[in-house]
Amino acid sequence: MKKFENFSQWFDKTLINADILDNRYPIKGFSVYKAWGAKISKKITEMLEERLEATGHSQVLFPVTISEDAFAKEAEHIEGFNTEVFWVTHAGKRRLSKKMLLRPTSETGMYPMFAYWIRSHADLPLKTFQSVSVFRYETKATRPLLRMREFLWNEAHTAHKDRNEAERQVNEALEIYDQTFRRLGLSYLVLKRPGFDKFAGADYSIAFDAWNPDGRVNQIGTVHNLGENFAKAFEITYEDVDGARRNVAQTCYGFGTSRTLAAVIAQHGDDHGMILPPEIAPIQVVIVPIPYKEHEKEVNAYAGEAYRKIVDAGLRAHLDEEDKTPGEKFYHWEIFGVPVRVEVGPKDLNERRITLSERVSLKRITVPFEETVSAIKELFVTLAKELEARSRSTLKNVTVKADGMDALKKAIRSKKIARVCWCEREECAEMIKNTSTGEIRGHRIDMSERPESPCIICGRKAKRVVYVARAY
Amino acid sequence: MKKFENFSQWFDKTLINADILDNRYPIKGFSVYKAWGAKISKKITEMLEERLEATGHSQVLFPVTISEDAFAKEAEHIEGFNTEVFWVTHAGKRRLSKKMLLRPTSETGMYPMFAYWIRSHADLPLKTFQSVSVFRYETKATRPLLRMREFLWNEAHTAHKDRNEAERQVNEALEIYDQTFRRLGLSYLVLKRPGFDKFAGADYSIAFDAWNPDGRVNQIGTVHNLGENFAKAFEITYEDVDGARRNVAQTCYGFGTSRTLAAVIAQHGDDHGMILPPEIAPIQVVIVPIPYKEHEKEVNAYAGEAYRKIVDAGLRAHLDEEDKTPGEKFYHWEIFGVPVRVEVGPKDLNERRITLSERVSLKRITVPFEETVSAIKELFVTLAKELEARSRSTLKNVTVKADGMDALKKAIRSKKIARVCWCEREECAEMIKNTSTGEIRGHRIDMSERPESPCIICGRKAKRVVYVARAY
Repeated sequence: MKKFENFSQWFDKTLINADILDNRYPIKGFSVYKAWGAKISKKITEMLEERLEATGHSQVLFPVTISEDAFAKEAEHIEGFNTEVFWVTHAGKRRLSKKMLLRPTSETGMYPMFAYWIRSHADLPLKTFQSVSVFRYETKATRPLLRMREFLWNEAHTAHKDRNEAERQVNEALEIYDQTFRRLGLSYLVLKRPGFDKFAGADYSIAFDAWNPDGRVNQIGTVHNLGENFAKAFEITYEDVDGARRNVAQTCYGFGTSRTLAAVIAQHGDDHGMILPPEIAPIQVVIVPIPYKEHEKEVNAYAGEAYRKIVDAGLRAHLDEEDKTPGEKFYHWEIFGVPVRVEVGPKDLNERRITLSERVSLKRITVPFEETVSAIKELFVTLAKELEARSRSTLKNVTVKADGMDALKKAIRSKKIARVCWCEREECAEMIKNTSTGEIRGHRIDMSERPESPCIICGRKAKRVVYVARAY
Repeated sequence: MKKFENFSQWFDKTLINADILDNRYPIKGFSVYKAWGAKISKKITEMLEERLEATGHSQVLFPVTISEDAFAKEAEHIEGFNTEVFWVTHAGKRRLSKKMLLRPTSETGMYPMFAYWIRSHADLPLKTFQSVSVFRYETKATRPLLRMREFLWNEAHTAHKDRNEAERQVNEALEIYDQTFRRLGLSYLVLKRPGFDKFAGADYSIAFDAWNPDGRVNQIGTVHNLGENFAKAFEITYEDVDGARRNVAQTCYGFGTSRTLAAVIAQHGDDHGMILPPEIAPIQVVIVPIPYKEHEKEVNAYAGEAYRKIVDAGLRAHLDEEDKTPGEKFYHWEIFGVPVRVEVGPKDLNERRITLSERVSLKRITVPFEETVSAIKELFVTLAKELEARSRSTLKNVTVKADGMDALKKAIRSKKIARVCWCEREECAEMIKNTSTGEIRGHRIDMSERPESPCIICGRKAKRVVYVARAY
């Protein structure tokens, strides 16, 4: 199946064939993670959590429900999420005296506790995170992993003594996310969202928009500077060194685990199926014995020897001893995206060598048995680099400059991300959306781009170079 | 504070002081896991998951919500859980056309998918698990960790070709749980619940009841043989080798992560605070420099050397360099239950030795610097053994034989678990509960105990030796 020609079909098939997700759960927008999907999600989460711990964030775990009173405290926030929260109204046959909602994000769940936890400047900075699922009643068409009504994420919430420190925290968060996404070989634009598209209750929002084969960008992470908005609403204050009570300054950031998994599948996969970066592959190496008649026993023993050698080196390996042909096994593990395959046949046995094949090029190489582990590790590096380079080059290819509306419409139609100049007025943004179906996603923060032409809509002086794309 | 004299107060204080749980969340029965509690819960979960993976269970992740239709399919099950489920009825301002419930347990969420996944005998056995939180509207007084409206658990669900295989699975599950609880040094009775107290929809249920200092047993795990009850309700059938369609036989088992954490705290803790088995301690070793004037720099450097040595050996260590007195640090880490403390003072430095103290006895020993790691590992073993032995001996002491109602009432009043003979009639069980406030928890399955006297209530021939206790 062709990934770039019919992404939607390719993606659905891959999710089913590679045991990622089963979309037949009897509630719309809710899906079941199967073994491969659950394990990869866990590895992605662990990778991120490790960075968060290393940078002084501590893990917490909040209830899935938020009280109606707390939810109502920050005006912009409630306005932003009001229409998409799920309400728990009854228990057994009783109506609850206070209804509660399933967290769509946890600001209003966490910040009443922050008000207890923060008393003095000595309690700051407070840096916490949790890896949980959140719930949003999406009215747009749901899509597995990309737009679900329950999805996995990691959210961090921090409080600081002033805005400068919060600003620095935003930068730390951007770096943590960038490092993590890069370790996964993903490519994306890091964009400061226009004011009308910031997180409800934030001063500003910066997002990681990953390219997707169907042209709709996939927001895999966002970082928000909340200023003192929530601090005021939730009365999160501290006694400063001078004895004065001050509001904390806050940040929060969300890492879309389900969407990151989607990006890994969508960006790296090929027409054979998934391709997994070695670091998050539940099985990094699969060993397939190629037994010929009269040599079965020796070949299987040799495959076992290779398996033990690889496992002893600390790699995650699987020896496929099922009653299938080697070809069936190759096909199976290619769909699952296992980075390296080891083939062991009578010739390998005779020459005490092994045959290796990595999942991107599918080319075979032969190495002496003693070099098995080092050769595999080298292939891991090659493969990870190759995935990253390929993804980056695709991002470059799909990002095109659009000087006029025709060029913009054509770009969006042909599944590109368009780079346009914009005057920063909301009515021009709306016009862009209405005529091209693409949305202004924001301007890059990793470089300063000067508009070289007037606003694509109104012809006035442009203030920003922004990126326009359809989005999930 | 005295653990055995005022358990409730001791427990609440320990949860707060050791950063386990904050009970001030604004929804009754829902609490916030703080860093130490979140980390220990994760370690316990990992320990169990590792055993489940090793025995061929695969991880899945189901939605938190279950459809009303699926929930209503198994008559006994719905009757058992009907009064305690939370209902999601609205999204935004809309009423949902189909309301859904928050899973109180996942049979009715999972089994519609089992019906898709299982087609033929080749799909069996199916062994799955997930580590999630579940929701029950408890009408009894809620207690942190022990009885909450949202709690953490791991649940496994399996399907088999016949009842014999399901029976064997029950035994495997009992062994997995027993091994895991024993690795944590816990003591408990493994009891087959009387028929009137089995899981709603099961053929029979076996439970792990851990002793608790206040005499109320803490059910930390349960294993259920579901027979074909759910298979019939959810039409989970397979094509057998002979071509016939047959119902699967099922089992499910739940491991209470929150309650296991409660048991670890309650059974092992002492009047100073928590005591953690090394395997699940987020910090296994804390290093406290004891600087004297004029020697601060050298002592701190030596403490750093010790820290690196311990970390390099793969242990989870923390060097406490905060600006507090050594005494304050000792006190702090004792509350948190860190298994081993390393003290490093000028004398240790001069003699190139270190001083170790383990959390159970709090006795100090001195070893040459070179033996640091091996000495710590030895202390880990000693400490784990000591915790286990102490807990086992307490279980023995609190389990008493009660020949008559006075003895039974006295036993329950004095926080014991009573061993009584019972005729197996439900009305006698009710009488036991009404007069003693203890409940029949079931009979032991690890030994066959013959009743040596008549039923404690009616004087008829007793059929079972059962254990009576108050329970959470």
